[in-house]
Amino acid sequence: MGRGKISIRRIENPTSRQVTFSKRSNGLLKKAKELAILCDAEVGLVIFSSTGRLHEYASSSMVKVTERYNKVKEESRQLVDPTADVKHQPVKAEVAGSSPVNPDLGSDKYATTRL
Amino acid sequence: MGRGKISIRRIENPTSRQVTFSKRSNGLLKKAKELAILCDAEVGLVIFSSTGRLHEYASSSMVKVTERYNKVKEESRQLVDPTADVKHQPVKAEVAGSSPVNPDLGSDKYATTRL
Repeated sequence: MGRGKISIRRIENPTSRQVTFSKRSNGLLKKAKELAILCDAEVGLVIFSSTGRLHEYASSSMVKVTERYNKVKEESRQLVDPTADVKHQPVKAEVAGSSPVNPDLGSDKYATTRL
Repeated sequence: MGRGKISIRRIENPTSRQVTFSKRSNGLLKKAKELAILCDAEVGLVIFSSTGRLHEYASSSMVKVTERYNKVKEESRQLVDPTADVKHQPVKAEVAGSSPVNPDLGSDKYATTRL
């Protein structure tokens, strides 16, 4: 049962893979939670098993994590290349970016025009 | 250094917290990567430190993980409550949901109108 050193490549045996997935994904979710608490970090973790099942953890909410992620990415892209928004950024993003504090943010958890 | 049992609560000392963050976030990113490879899973991990710095790992890409996540959430919400889309779901989401295979998906890594 575990404890031996394994090489990091896809596990071919489906049963072993499932067992390993179950153990490691639980471990990962636990560690993600601990990191968020111990270090006051905002953490979002999404795991899809090979069978397509979703496991997730978010210290705040996945929507908040995703929004913050996209905001940071947006800002860093504009720092690297000030013309980038012309090429990559649809109009919707500019609107969203210019109003980070949106009063109806919480009321629509799955707002699709904001990333 | 480490190795003692700690209680899972916020570390008050900023230096210790930073050291713990650095070690644990690296560990978490490594474990996320291993899980993805070993178990053929799709994994997305986003970590913001308490100072706001972003650390991330995605086995595919964060955009793909986010889209898949939202698709699954969307589907499960509709299973639970078939009228939910009237309440929560803007028109954009229906459009996105009805065309999961979008040819320009890869060309715009930060498509903001799709979640």
